[in-house]
Amino acid sequence: MSKLLDEIKLCCEEVDRFIFELLESDKDIQVLYQSSIHLFKAGGKRVRPFLTIKACEAVGGDPSISIPVASAIEILHTFTLIHDDIMDESDLRRGVPTVHTVWGIPQAITSGDYLFAKVFQVICRSEVAERIGYDKIVRIAGMIAEAMIDIAKGQTLDLLLQSRMDVSEEEYLEMIRLKTARLFQVSAEIGALIGGCSYDEFEALSGYGLKAGLAFQIVDDILGLVGSEEELGKPIGSDLREGKKTIVVIQGLRKLPARSKSIVTRVLGRRDASNKDVKRAIETLIRYGCVEYAKDMALRFRDESIASLSKIKPSRSRASLEELARLFVDRRL
Amino acid sequence: MSKLLDEIKLCCEEVDRFIFELLESDKDIQVLYQSSIHLFKAGGKRVRPFLTIKACEAVGGDPSISIPVASAIEILHTFTLIHDDIMDESDLRRGVPTVHTVWGIPQAITSGDYLFAKVFQVICRSEVAERIGYDKIVRIAGMIAEAMIDIAKGQTLDLLLQSRMDVSEEEYLEMIRLKTARLFQVSAEIGALIGGCSYDEFEALSGYGLKAGLAFQIVDDILGLVGSEEELGKPIGSDLREGKKTIVVIQGLRKLPARSKSIVTRVLGRRDASNKDVKRAIETLIRYGCVEYAKDMALRFRDESIASLSKIKPSRSRASLEELARLFVDRRL
Repeated sequence: MSKLLDEIKLCCEEVDRFIFELLESDKDIQVLYQSSIHLFKAGGKRVRPFLTIKACEAVGGDPSISIPVASAIEILHTFTLIHDDIMDESDLRRGVPTVHTVWGIPQAITSGDYLFAKVFQVICRSEVAERIGYDKIVRIAGMIAEAMIDIAKGQTLDLLLQSRMDVSEEEYLEMIRLKTARLFQVSAEIGALIGGCSYDEFEALSGYGLKAGLAFQIVDDILGLVGSEEELGKPIGSDLREGKKTIVVIQGLRKLPARSKSIVTRVLGRRDASNKDVKRAIETLIRYGCVEYAKDMALRFRDESIASLSKIKPSRSRASLEELARLFVDRRL
Repeated sequence: MSKLLDEIKLCCEEVDRFIFELLESDKDIQVLYQSSIHLFKAGGKRVRPFLTIKACEAVGGDPSISIPVASAIEILHTFTLIHDDIMDESDLRRGVPTVHTVWGIPQAITSGDYLFAKVFQVICRSEVAERIGYDKIVRIAGMIAEAMIDIAKGQTLDLLLQSRMDVSEEEYLEMIRLKTARLFQVSAEIGALIGGCSYDEFEALSGYGLKAGLAFQIVDDILGLVGSEEELGKPIGSDLREGKKTIVVIQGLRKLPARSKSIVTRVLGRRDASNKDVKRAIETLIRYGCVEYAKDMALRFRDESIASLSKIKPSRSRASLEELARLFVDRRL
C-alpha cells in the first residue's frame, strides 16, 4: 500500500509541476492567477491524472506523453470544485477557505471559467497534438466535453434531489455516476487511448474507472458523516445541513422507524442545525446500519472495478490500479 | 442596409436551427435544458456567427461548412452572458428575466458550464472534424479556449475597475479588447481559417474583427446610457449603478468640472440610486460631450476595421462585413 502512495505522490509532483508552470503564463492579471491557483496549492491527491497516467502505462503506452492531458483533467476537476463550492455555499475545502470566500462569488465564477478554458488550451497545444496525434486529440477533447456535460447534468440532479425527500437508490446512483464517476471513467479511457489501447482494453479500463468512481463517491459520502474534520478539510455533516441525498441518508429515510427518522429529517437541509443535533442524526444513521449498507455497496463497486481489469494484461500498473480501487474504500484519498 | 439585415436574419435562422436541435439532445434533464435554452429563445442577433460565416465566404470558402463552429461561438457567447448576469446582479437581458433570476444562481452557474462544454462537444464531433480537417479543428478549439481565457481576464479587469475611480482610457480599452473584441476577432479568424484563407487574409479579417469588436462595445456602452429601454432589453443606466468604468464615464471623471462631476459620482456604483439622479448624471455626461467623445472613438475603430478589409479581394461578403461595421455604430445590433 505504501508503495502505491509513493507512486501517487510522484505522479502528483509531475502533474503539479505542469499545472503550476502552465498557470504562470497568466500571471499578468494577479487576482485571476491567485484565485485560480488557490485550490491547487491547498493540496489534493491528483487521483484522476493518476488514473490517466496508469491507464496509459497499463496498455503499454509511454506515460510521460499523457502528462499534459492528465493535468488538464485535474484542472477540469478543480474548476468544478470552485463552482460547486459556490453552489453549496461551502466555506472550507482542503482545509482552506474556498475561492469565493476569499475573492467573492463573481471572481470565483470567473476563475472557474478560466480554468475550464485552460483545459482545452492545454490539450490543443501543437506540441501535445503532434505527440498524441490530431485525430486522437479531437476525440479526447470531445470526450472531456461530454464528461463535463454529464457533470452538469449530475450537478442539476444533485440540486433537484436536495429539495426532495423521496429519492430512490437508482436516482442517487445516476446522480453520482454523472457528477463523479464519469470523470473517473473518462480519465481512464483517455489514458488508454493515449497509450494506444485495443478495443477490449478500452472497455476494461472504462468499466474500471466508472466502478471505481462510484465506490469513491459512496465512500466520500460516508466520510462526510464519520470522517475526521482534519482529514476531510471541511466540517463533518455539512452534507446533511445542505440537504444532500447521499446513499446513507436515502437508506435512513427508507429504513428508520418514525421517531429515529425525525432525528435525521430535523437537520436535513437545515444550515442552522446545531452540532449536537447533527451528531445525533449521524449516530442514528450508524446505529441503524445505514453507513454499513453504504460501505457494502462501495465494496461491491470496488470488486467490480477490479474484476473489469482482469481483461487487460497483468503488469505493475494494472496492479497499481487494483490497489488504488482498494485504497478508495479502505481509506479516503 | 436592409439587405444586410435580411442576410443577418437568414444566417441567424440557420444558426438557431442548429443550436435548438443540438440542445434537444439533452432534454432528459428538463431544468438544465430549459435554463440553457432560455436566452437563445429570448432573441439576439447572432452577430458573432455571422462574422464567422461571412469571413469564411469572403476568402472563398463554402459558408455552410462553418455553421457548426459559428453556432459553437454563439453558444460560448451565451454562456458568458449567463455568468455575467450573475456577477452583475442583472435582472433583465434581451427583455426577459435573466437565467439566475428564474432558476437561481446555482442552476445558472451550472447551465453556463454546460453550454461551455457544448462548445467543444460540437466542434469535436467527427462529422465536423472530417469536413474541416482534424488539424484545423485542434487549432480552432485552441483559439476558442484562448479567447475564453482572455474573456476571463477581461472580466477580472472589469470587476477590478469597478472599485477604482482613476481608470485610464488605456485600461478601459484593454478591458474591452479582452472581454468583448477578442471574441469578435476570433470569430472572424476562425471563419477565415475554415474558408482556407491565406496568411494575409487571416491578418486582414483578424484586424477587422478586433476593431469592429471595439467599436461595438463602445457603442454598447453609449447605448446603455442613451438608448431606449425596449431596444436595450434592460434598464437604462444600469452600467452607472454597477459602477462600470465605461469610456463615457472615464471621460466624465477626467473632464467634468467638480460640481458636475459629483452629479456623476453620486450614482456611480450605487445600486440604490434614484432614476432621477441617474437621469441627471446621464444628461451631465451628454452636456459635457462625453458621449460625443466616445462616439468619435467608435467611429475611428469602425474606419480602421473597414480599412483592414481592403487587403482581401472585393466580394459581396466583404461588402457585408463593411456594412456590418457601419451598422455597429449607426444602430445597435
